[in-house]
Parts: sequence; structure tokens; C-alpha cells
Amino acid sequence: MRWRYIIKTVGVLNLFFGATMLVPLVFSLFAMDGSLMPLLKAMGVTLLVGGAVVALFRHEKTEFMSQREGMAIVAVGWTAIGLFGALPFYFSDSAFTFTDAFFESVSGFTTTGSSILTDIEGQSPGLLLWRSFIQWLGGMGIIVLSIAILPFLGVGGMQLYKAEVPSPVPDKLKPRIRDTAMILWKVYALFSVAEVVLLMVGGMTLFDALNHAFTTMPTGGFSTKNASVAHFDSVYIDGVITLFMLLAGINFSLHYQLLKGRPLAFWKDSECRFYLAMCLVLTLVVAANIYHTVYDNVGQALRYAAFQVVSIVTTTGYATADYELWPAMSQVIIFLCMFVGASAGSTGGGMKCLRIMLGFKYCYKELFSMIHPRAVTHIKIGGKGVPEDVIRSVLGFLALYMALFALSTVLLAGIGVDFVTALGAVAATIGNIGPGFGMVGPVENFAAIPCLGKWLLAWCMLLGRLEIYTLIILVVPEFWRK
Amino acid sequence: MRWRYIIKTVGVLNLFFGATMLVPLVFSLFAMDGSLMPLLKAMGVTLLVGGAVVALFRHEKTEFMSQREGMAIVAVGWTAIGLFGALPFYFSDSAFTFTDAFFESVSGFTTTGSSILTDIEGQSPGLLLWRSFIQWLGGMGIIVLSIAILPFLGVGGMQLYKAEVPSPVPDKLKPRIRDTAMILWKVYALFSVAEVVLLMVGGMTLFDALNHAFTTMPTGGFSTKNASVAHFDSVYIDGVITLFMLLAGINFSLHYQLLKGRPLAFWKDSECRFYLAMCLVLTLVVAANIYHTVYDNVGQALRYAAFQVVSIVTTTGYATADYELWPAMSQVIIFLCMFVGASAGSTGGGMKCLRIMLGFKYCYKELFSMIHPRAVTHIKIGGKGVPEDVIRSVLGFLALYMALFALSTVLLAGIGVDFVTALGAVAATIGNIGPGFGMVGPVENFAAIPCLGKWLLAWCMLLGRLEIYTLIILVVPEFWRK
Repeated sequence: MRWRYIIKTVGVLNLFFGATMLVPLVFSLFAMDGSLMPLLKAMGVTLLVGGAVVALFRHEKTEFMSQREGMAIVAVGWTAIGLFGALPFYFSDSAFTFTDAFFESVSGFTTTGSSILTDIEGQSPGLLLWRSFIQWLGGMGIIVLSIAILPFLGVGGMQLYKAEVPSPVPDKLKPRIRDTAMILWKVYALFSVAEVVLLMVGGMTLFDALNHAFTTMPTGGFSTKNASVAHFDSVYIDGVITLFMLLAGINFSLHYQLLKGRPLAFWKDSECRFYLAMCLVLTLVVAANIYHTVYDNVGQALRYAAFQVVSIVTTTGYATADYELWPAMSQVIIFLCMFVGASAGSTGGGMKCLRIMLGFKYCYKELFSMIHPRAVTHIKIGGKGVPEDVIRSVLGFLALYMALFALSTVLLAGIGVDFVTALGAVAATIGNIGPGFGMVGPVENFAAIPCLGKWLLAWCMLLGRLEIYTLIILVVPEFWRK
Repeated sequence: MRWRYIIKTVGVLNLFFGATMLVPLVFSLFAMDGSLMPLLKAMGVTLLVGGAVVALFRHEKTEFMSQREGMAIVAVGWTAIGLFGALPFYFSDSAFTFTDAFFESVSGFTTTGSSILTDIEGQSPGLLLWRSFIQWLGGMGIIVLSIAILPFLGVGGMQLYKAEVPSPVPDKLKPRIRDTAMILWKVYALFSVAEVVLLMVGGMTLFDALNHAFTTMPTGGFSTKNASVAHFDSVYIDGVITLFMLLAGINFSLHYQLLKGRPLAFWKDSECRFYLAMCLVLTLVVAANIYHTVYDNVGQALRYAAFQVVSIVTTTGYATADYELWPAMSQVIIFLCMFVGASAGSTGGGMKCLRIMLGFKYCYKELFSMIHPRAVTHIKIGGKGVPEDVIRSVLGFLALYMALFALSTVLLAGIGVDFVTALGAVAATIGNIGPGFGMVGPVENFAAIPCLGKWLLAWCMLLGRLEIYTLIILVVPEFWRK
């Protein structure tokens, strides 16, 4: 492990990151909203630290990177950006404690969307723009991470992309990381612009439309309104956001294929079919469950069911209704959706549909081989056999996910929140969703979680976002051995 | 599938089972407690049906049994005994609905211990004796099932015993199923007698001591008292029962080894070490958590923590305290213990320590192989490598367990119970524990669960007891193909 090299790389990342602070800074300069100084200070500190580190380690060679160093860079880089991203909040007039600022920042970069803000509308617009913008940046980071970096590091079955097993065939995308990233970022930006336009058509101000597009596409879920998307109370806006959440939960290389003129790209991908079918079926089940019990009219039941189901499955976390007031069946479905998550290669979190599918196929294969003990069977996805090591990696991921969920829930309950809140908060953060259950339900926030609990949950967000392995491997003693 | 053969075998089982009804019958004859007629009727029906079936299919050959037929016999047999075992309840004066009678009977035979009785002490002693006795019979069935039958059917990693991997070496036990069963049943009976004596020394009546021994050794948990073991409010009785629960959660072949004069049998078995260490650590954590918050005195905190932790880990389900009133951390630990369960080869339920251990080792191996991609590693238990197919079977079991837990929770919530009750009731039944959370907590019972929900939970109990695979395989279409 060449730590100097890792630190230098993170330093370079910091310089880029500091530069992005120009976006809200320029906005604040024109808006004169009081967030100019916090942003300037934060940018200064970030650039200074980044510059100092790069200058100090300028002689480190950066051609070759080992797998272990790659993982360390991802883990350290994401944490560092969480820390520096917290500065605008910390320096602002809103009296953020450093814990709260860090929590909000990590929640942004991991595109979780859990918030400690009790009065969002009382914040300065520049700070809110920063808050949404870091989710958008986080989404960019995730696209690169999940499609270009993690597959090469062999993390949690993301090798599926490397092994070219499912239909989003990387060989059809430009081969090199930078080119791949650029292509997918263009898709990401294109969708974001489209959403801004469509939201403004629905009557949103440019500011709100921009903020919501910044937090829909990364499946982030920060809103500029205390009541989240419910504030706008518009069928049209609900519809537009539901559509873009749904799109953000699809593997971005499929979007690229679609835009390149392959209309059947979604249909040909088995994960995408699974994902869309799941959203549809769960929407219908939840709508049937809340029709009559909560809403008197089928249209309303469908509208609120679709929005909430898609918001949770895609791990966005916007709310237009309080699902904690829904019947128990809908609540259980919402809770379980927090574990499933969106497609691999999307900006969504959770376990990912691909892994859940593999888990099901694995169980079926086991049952099949009990019935036919001598039959040799292979698990296929998209018509191609999945290599044994990928299956092992996926199963290990699922087991680690559940084990860490269990452990974190015990710890959070030990820090002092109730049973349901502990389950909900950990599920919502490790899955990068946003709202949970109990004290941290969709109409509440994370402000009342004890300080230590916020650090634990910030760790859960990073854990989920970096696909567990990348972060947890750092605590395995073997990793540090020569 | 030779259905006639399967039905005949279950018929033979029924004849044996009908004969066991003599035990409470003789008791009732002397006690003159009004349960004589219900038991006589039930015994008559059971023997008649069994006899008719055997007579009808008397020409079926029974030498050879295929793996599939073996699984069908286990599934059909256990369900049939649940049905006939319900008859004494159904015929009794206590106005059981058939659903309630079936629920109570299945809860008995699966050694779950969930009850629909709101006034246990108001039942006739003969019926209570039957209720405890079926748990004891269920325990005998499980010992044979888990040590002698399932390993040969290749269910859920129970092949570990067949493959002679862990230290409870079957080759040191008599080789044939019947002999093995006889040996382990002797151990089981010996412990039961010892517990009766020790409980009577503590001041229990013979009747209560007998009933509690009948439900401790199978880790069942039915009590003759409304307040469960809390009724006796005795440190001595708590201690004796805690000890015997702990023993019942250990692989019975280890007990046999110990009695054969190998004092280190427990210590040499890695699952047993894991199980005992887990009980100890969790007792200490829970005691620390409830000391000061619930109990003012360390002794009391330890006493109640030990009893409740051991009761849930071993999946017995007795209560001496209401853990729902404990701090959230203890509640979360109790909830998670419901999934872990006791040792494989014991009478306990849940996922079993052995599988949890394998899961952990698997995760570690995955992390290790990310650090050393070219290293070839094997998972070992007790110093010996675990075959790949056993690992696959165990992982499939864990995934199926969680998937069925999730599905059943959705269904139960859909039937009309709240979020926490649904989670708790399904965890408590699929893990064969007894009490859950919410409406079905340790000081409540399952009476208020809707009728359909009781059938669902009875299915969950069978599912858990028959190690998932044996039952779920019957709903796989492939199983029915020629």
C-alpha cells in the first residue's frame, strides 16, 4: 500500500471538488443570500488542503494502481469529500454542529437524502443549492464507480459487467474508464436538463426545478421544501418526478443504448425487466391496499402508491404521502423495498435487483439440484452463464449486507433510539434511501438521532454506497498485512 | 413418486402416534378431569384412519425409499400428525375452533410454543398434559429428523453430518437410523427425567415438573401457567430451566459423547463453542443494558437476561420477563436471536449456529479472496474442509429463509396485523420460538391473530421445523415432473 500515492490521488480529487463549489458560489454572488462567505471559506479550505497535499507528494508516480490501492482510494476519497463537503454547512449561519454538517454532506454525496434539517425552507438558497448539487455530483461519482471502477476491482459481483454477462455489454461502450464516464455523464446531464424543463412546464420555479432535477437523477431525494414533493401537490409534477426516478433506477448503459437507437434495450435486459415489473406489481399491490383504507379514489391510490413505491425502490426517498399512516402490508412492502433497491449500474442503492435475481436463481438451483442430484446446472442471466466467482461474490455481498444491517441496528438501538426507528434508520441509510420508519419517517427527519448515532448512520450510508466490500475490506486485518 | 407408499408410511406413523395418546388418557382416567372423552375420541379417530390406510395399502412394498419420497413422507407425515394431534383440543369442552386446535397442535409438534390459549390454567390437566406431551414427541421427531433423516436427504447443509465434517462424528454413533435414534432418545429421556427431579426439588408439583420437562427438552416452551415460568418466581427454578434449555440447544450427539466419557466433547466442537460463547456474550450485553434501566441489582439483571436470551436463542420461548419493556438494544438483540437459533442436531430451531458460522466464514473468505485474488482458500469447520455442495446448500438455505420470512411478513400484514407484530410473529414461528413482538409478545398470545393468519403461521412453523427445503420443495413444479 503506497499511502503517499493514495493521499496524493485524493488530493487531486479534492482540487476538482473544490472547483465545483464555484457553482453555488456564483449563484450566491448574484442572489446575495448570505451563503457567499460560507461557500468561499469552504472552497478556500478545500483547495488549500488539496493543493498542499498534491504539492507535498508531487513526486509520487501515478501510472500503476493495485486493486487494494484502488479500494483504499475509493473509501478514503469518498470520506474526504464528505468531510470537505460539510464545510459550507458548518460555516453557514444556520449553526450546524460539525456532526450535523458531516451527516448532511455524506447523505448528499452518497445520494441517500436523509436530512437533519428541521426547517429546510429557512435555509439560504445558496446553501440549499449546494445541498442538492452534492447529490448530483455524488450521482456522477456513482455512475463511474459502479460501471467503470468497481467491476475492475471485483467488488460484490459488479464483475458481471466486466465479464460482460448481462446485456448492458460494456464492449459496446467506449472501453476506457474516462470515455465510458463521459458518455454516461452526458446521458445523466441530458436527463437532468429534460427534467428541469418538464418541471418548469408544470409551474416550478427555475430554482426548485433545478434543485429537484439535481436530486432526482442521482436518486438522492433532498428537496427544497419541508414537505418534500408533497409541497407542490400536483399530479403533473408527481408524474414527471416518478418517471425520472424510474429512469434513474435503470442501468445507465441501457439509457445510452436506447439513445443510440436500440428501442428494445430495456426489454432485452433481464434486470431491467425485473426492476420495471417489480415497480409495477408493487404499485398495484400497494394501491389496492391503500384504496378505501386511505384514499377514496382509485386514481389517488395509484398516484400515491406509484410515487412512494418508485421513490423507495429507486432509493430516492422523496415523499408525497406518509406511508407510516398506511396499512401494515404497505408498510412492510416499503420496508422490504429498502433492501431490494434499484438496478446495478444505476444511481440507486440497496442490494440491487441484479443481486436479488441472482439470489432467487441460486435458491431455485439448489432446490432443483435436490430433485435432480446428478444434474449439472448453471445460473444464467440474460441467456449467458454467470461465472462461479461472481455468484460467490454476490452471495457474500447479500450475507454481509444483512450482517451489517443487523449489527448496525443493535448499535443504533444501543445508542438510544427505539426498535422500529433503529430498524428503519439503518435500512434507510445502508440502502441509501433517505426516510425510514418511526422517528425518521417520511414526514420527520434525522435531527433527533443522538450524535453518535449520526456518525454510525453516516458510516452506514458510505457502506451501502461503496457496495459494502470496498469499505469493509479496510477493517479486515489481512488487508493491512504486507 | 409412489403416493400409495407415502400414504401407507404416514398411516403406520399414525398408528404409533395414536398409541401415544394413551399417556394423557391414562392420566385422565385417574385424574377424572373431563379430558377423558376428548382424548378417547381423538385416539379412536387417529387409530381408525391409520389402520384403514395401512389395511388399504398393505401390499405396498416398503424396502426402498427415494430421496423425493423421503421428503414427501417427512412433509406429509408432520402435517398429518399436526392434524390428528389437534383432535383432543377440538373435541375438548374448551370450544376450540378447528383453526385454533390445529394451530396449537402444530405449535406443539414443531416445538414452537406459540399458543392461542388466553387462559391456560383454566384448561383441564389432561389436555395440558397432552399439549406438553406433543412437544416432547415433536422433540423426539426432530432429533431423528436432523441427525438421521435430513442428512441423508441432503437438506440444507445437514449433509455436514453425513459428510462427517464437524466433530460430532456419526461413525462413532451406531450406524443405522433406528439405533442412532434409540441412543439419542435415551439421552433425551435421561435429561427429561433429571429435569423433573430437579424441578420437584425446587418445589414444583410432579404435574408441573413433568409438563415443564416435556417442553424444555424439545425447546418447546408451552407452560402450564398463564405467566409462563415467571409464575414460579424462583431463582432456583429459573436456573434449572435455563440450564436444561441450554443443554437442549446443543447437538445431541455431543451429549452422547459426553455421557460416554469424553469430557471435552463440547469444547472440541466448534459449533458448540460458538453457541455457548454467543449465549454468554449476549447475556452479558443484555444484562448491562437492562441493569439500571429495568433492574436495580446486577444479580437480577443477569438472571433475567440469561433466562430470556437462552430461551430465545434455544428457541424455547418461556418467559420470566417481558422483553418488550426492555430498552431497544435488548429488544433488537432478542429479535435477531430469533433468526440465529440453536445448534444443528439439537431440538432447537432458527437458522442454526452452524449455518450462521458458515455464513460468516464465507463472507470472510470472499473478503480474503478480494485481497489475495489468486489464493485458493477453503472453508473449514472443526479443522476439516467443508465440501462446496454443503456450502452452497447452506447459503441457499439462508437466502430461502430470509425470502420466506419476507414473503410471510407481507402476507401476514396483508391479513391484518400491524408492522411490528407481523415481523415478530413470522420470526417467532419460522424460527420455532414461540412469543414474538407486538400483539404476540411474551406476555400475550396468538389468540387475536385472524384465522387466515393462524394458518399462515402454522405453515411457517412447519417450514422452519422441516428445515425449509423439505417443505418448500413440494411447491416447486419440477418436483412433480416425471
